[in-house]
Parts: sequence; structure tokens; C-alpha cells
Amino acid sequence: MPPSDSRERAKTLVLSIQDEICSGLEILDGEGKFIEESWVRPEGGGGKSRVMQQGKIFEQGGVNFSEVHGQELPPSILNQRPEAKGHPWFATGTSMVLHPRNPFIPTVHLNYRYFEAGPVWWFGGGADLTPFYPYLNDAKHFHMTHKEACDSVNPELHKVFKPWCDEYFFLKHRDETRGIGGIFYDYQNGAGPLYKGQNMDGVAAQASNKIGSQEMNWDQLFNLAQSCGRAFLPAYSPIIEKRQNQLYGDREREFQLYRRGRYVEFNLVWDRGTIFGLQTNGRTESILMSLPPLARWEYGYSASKGSREALLTDLFTKPQNWLSDDSLQEACLIHNAVD
Amino acid sequence: MPPSDSRERAKTLVLSIQDEICSGLEILDGEGKFIEESWVRPEGGGGKSRVMQQGKIFEQGGVNFSEVHGQELPPSILNQRPEAKGHPWFATGTSMVLHPRNPFIPTVHLNYRYFEAGPVWWFGGGADLTPFYPYLNDAKHFHMTHKEACDSVNPELHKVFKPWCDEYFFLKHRDETRGIGGIFYDYQNGAGPLYKGQNMDGVAAQASNKIGSQEMNWDQLFNLAQSCGRAFLPAYSPIIEKRQNQLYGDREREFQLYRRGRYVEFNLVWDRGTIFGLQTNGRTESILMSLPPLARWEYGYSASKGSREALLTDLFTKPQNWLSDDSLQEACLIHNAVD
Repeated sequence: MPPSDSRERAKTLVLSIQDEICSGLEILDGEGKFIEESWVRPEGGGGKSRVMQQGKIFEQGGVNFSEVHGQELPPSILNQRPEAKGHPWFATGTSMVLHPRNPFIPTVHLNYRYFEAGPVWWFGGGADLTPFYPYLNDAKHFHMTHKEACDSVNPELHKVFKPWCDEYFFLKHRDETRGIGGIFYDYQNGAGPLYKGQNMDGVAAQASNKIGSQEMNWDQLFNLAQSCGRAFLPAYSPIIEKRQNQLYGDREREFQLYRRGRYVEFNLVWDRGTIFGLQTNGRTESILMSLPPLARWEYGYSASKGSREALLTDLFTKPQNWLSDDSLQEACLIHNAVD
Repeated sequence: MPPSDSRERAKTLVLSIQDEICSGLEILDGEGKFIEESWVRPEGGGGKSRVMQQGKIFEQGGVNFSEVHGQELPPSILNQRPEAKGHPWFATGTSMVLHPRNPFIPTVHLNYRYFEAGPVWWFGGGADLTPFYPYLNDAKHFHMTHKEACDSVNPELHKVFKPWCDEYFFLKHRDETRGIGGIFYDYQNGAGPLYKGQNMDGVAAQASNKIGSQEMNWDQLFNLAQSCGRAFLPAYSPIIEKRQNQLYGDREREFQLYRRGRYVEFNLVWDRGTIFGLQTNGRTESILMSLPPLARWEYGYSASKGSREALLTDLFTKPQNWLSDDSLQEACLIHNAVD
């Protein structure tokens, strides 16, 4: 059972994640500032959207907070949680996507959310990184930081949330992951199967559907969201600091814009949240804050053999065991992509 | 009943439409040439994709031809044609999208296709225009040319195919049409209801579901595709010739790239053909040839009041009776947008 002040606590948590990260990003950027717009949802609730445009580091960054409610959840969610049928629902969450200008800095995404509907409640969320140029140590750092955040709550979590992320952020029509992943989880209520793979995400399961032998209670799942949300800046900031002064030219910029096209494809074709929002009268401008400021498409493009762009495509858009697969080191060393 | 050589005739027709238009476009462009790639579909059939990149007029143009077959149509089509269930099917068609560089020249799309599956067969297709800057006379010319092509087969057709186009090329999440429309039709087999609006396209019907009192036979529908396919160059070329030397600057280019973002949104979120292709293992590079070479997104953008960009958004992305509504003339005159 959730505590009596569950909604207020969850809302306060996602608001504090949003605030902490926005402040940190403004300091990192040094010039860009987030502009905030509040909005009201006619069907119930509302939110705050913050956007940074043409910063020094961030070409665009969008950060959303929302707290919404309604009379009945849509069928796509009720399929996963039939017990919620016929009950009013409440949801609060924060999400963000940052598109840096320098192609050596990866694009990043974060989302943490909490739902209640009658007898059921659950937490969901995660964070994933999408590099344009391959650096093994950046991938390792991002994964390790999130693994530690998960481990601090339950050491059985990361081995499930990591492959779940690879599976969710997958472009089936390209046979590519969106990036090097991170963590993803959904419908976490402490009991029952936590990861059903094919049933929940439409592609084959790659991980256990059980997290340890222990059910997690509301407070532990709250702590998980808090711990992972707070891991975001430590996971991402060092990568920015390391890459921000790396010089780039037209070649790198063109490749970045091309790969950003894939980001658009994922978000508009496969991302359940985006599609659901657009098809059900969500706030379009807030939903599409995740799209890049500039992107390009080129028929029949493929990176020249042996290039760093090919390494990105071949190795960094496939699911990898970043923290444990030693063969990655060799593959990256010859391309100067360990760093 | 289709004639005994129906498949061959339909294939020859769409190939000749593709050839005629590509030749015409190369002459218009003066520099760019189409490069052709043939491909084989593992499940049966294949196609030819032609692309022009970095031409003088066309920043990118993609033209596809395909002739494919299989054992059973997908559920999304069987819903519309249940008689086809359990039968092998055949489909041939051509489609193209042209993205000109000059923002005063509209983007344009064309598609004509023919299906057979057991006891049923049908034609589908159409063409629609997406201007970035508003010119009433361009819209009128494009519509009038297609109206004449329809009228030459049956004067009852255009009044149905024109609103059907507005309805199909509609971005619900933006409350905008993709452009000024043209014609669109699907599941045309000469009998039965030809346009069921809500049932066929998911949005409210705006037109009669009956075309005159007369059923059209196979030859008449073949003639319709031929007539409309041949109307494409006369509908589009004069607009290119009129606009190609109009000077533009950063403002116009930026607006064009912004509006191209809407083109991406329509194709990836709403276009049944694109989504179906991507989700069912179609040839991704050929399907996504419709996407623009460069596009941008900007949070919260809105055109300044009274500008030509606002006229485009307010008037040219809403369904209009371009050929009969005299009030459009007044609205466009004050913006110098009749021409």
C-alpha cells in the first residue's frame, strides 16, 4: 500500500529532480537559461515546461514536469494494469531531452514517473545516453553511475533494468538501439512480474522477469526513483566536461545531424509515450520538445569502413555489456575510442 | 472483373508514370539526375528506387516503384477488404516526394497503386502540394489541373477526392493539414461505398460516400490513374518555373526547415503507408526517402501576426475550397499572396 501522502511525495520528488538537474545544467552550460511555461490540461491537471535554446553547450534542452489526472486510463495502459479499469487515475512525472551542439557530447534522455489508479500504483522511468562519436569510457561511466544508483536500493535491479532499456529504445526498422542505453523500468509496484519482455514492450525478452526473491515496497521504489534521478548529473556532467572543448568540423556536425534523424524516427515511430500523447490530445509542444533543433536524412548513407562513424553504427547502436565485456576495449582501442 | 492482363497493365502504367515524371523533373532541374537502385523483397517481388540529391531545383527527390506479392494481406488492409482474407495478393505502385531547395517552391507528393487479392482488386492514389509560402494562384492551378484530370473520367469524382485528401493528409496533433491538398482516393473498385470517411480514415467524413449513380469499371479506374498521373507535371511544373528565381534569405529558409518538421511529423506519426512499412520489415531507405534532407524544430514557435508565415499557417494549412471560395482572394491580396 502507498503511504497516505503518496501523491504529494511523488510530486515533490519529481519536482526536486527537475529543479536539481535544471540548476546543474545551467551551471554546466554557463550561458543558456531555462525558460519556464506553465500550462493547464483541460481534462485535469497541468504542468511546467522548461526549455533552453541556443545555450553554449546545449543547442536545445527541454524539461517537462506534469501532474495530471482523469476518470479512466487509456486502453494501452489498462492492458498492462487491468485492475485499474473503472477507476480515476493520477500521474506525475518529469522528463527531459538535451541536445548538445558539440557532436562529441552525447544526447541524453531522462524520465521518472508515478501512477495511481484505484487499487493499483506503480513507478516507472530511466535514463539513456545517445552518443554520436564512440567513447567506451563515457558509456562505462554512464552505466556504472546508474548501476550504483540501482544497487544502493537493491543489487538485483540493474541486471534487469539495463537490458530492458536496450529493448525499449530500439529502432526495429533500423535494427539499431537508439544509443548505448542506460536503465529503464515500468509498472514497478513491488509485486508480480516486473519485466515481462515481449508482453510489455513488444520485442523478445532478454532478462529475467523476477527481481531477486524480494518484493520492494513503496518506499523502496520511491528511493529508487530518487537515487536514479540524483545519479543523472554525476552520470552525464563528467562526459560534458571531458568533451566540450573537443574541436569538430563539418564532418562531425553532419554525422550528428544525420544520427539525430534516428532520434526523430525513434520518438515518432516507436516511443509509446510520444505516440500516445500525440494521438490523445496531449500538449504537442511539450511532447515534441524531445525532437532535435536540426536533423537531416540522406538516402542510402553508410559510414565508410573503418571510420569512427562506422564504429558508432556497428558497436554503439547494438546492445552491449558495457561494464563486463572486455572485447569492447580492443575494438575501441584501434579507433582511439576508449579515452 | 479485371481484364486477364490486369497486373501487367497496371505495372506498365505505374512504370510509365514514374518514367515520364522523372524525365520531366530532370529537364526542369537542369542539373540533378536520378540515380536508380533496384532491390528485391525477400518475401516476394521488388522495386526500383530513384533519388536525386543536391540538384539545382531539388534539394532531394525520391521516386519509388514496387511490384510486390505475398500470401496474405496484413490485418490493417483486411479490415477494409475482408473478402481478401486467405488469398495471395499482388500490389504495384509508384510514389514520390520532391523537396525543392527554394522555399517559394512547394514540396509535392504523388502516389498511384493497384492491388489484387483473390476476388477483390482496387486502385488508390493521389497527389498533394505543400507550400511554405502562400500563393493562391499556385494552389488554384494545382487543384484545377487535378480536377480536370478527374473530370475527364467522371465529373463526380473530384468533389469526393478533394476532401478525402484534406482528411487524409491531416496532422491531428497540430490541427493542421499537411499542405493545400490535391486529390486522394483508396479502395476504388467501381462498386460499393467509395469513401466511408470515418471508417476508412479515422476522422469524420466530409463528403458523400457515393460517386454519382454510376459504378466505374476496371478500365475507367485505370484511365483515372493514368489521367491523374499525367496531370502531375502540368500541375507542378508551372509553379516551379514561376518561383524558381524568386530570391530568398535566411528567414524564408528557416521557415521552410521548420515547416519541413511538420512533413516529418505527418509521415512518421500519421501516414498509414509509412508506419505500416516500417513496422512490417519494408525497405526502410526506400520508405523514408519521403523525409526531407534537412528539418528543424523550435519549441513554442509561432509566426508573427500579419506575416506571410502566419498566412501560410492560418489559411494554407486548413481545408479550403480553393477553386470556389472567393473570400480567399481578399485574404491573400492584402498579403501579396495571390500572384
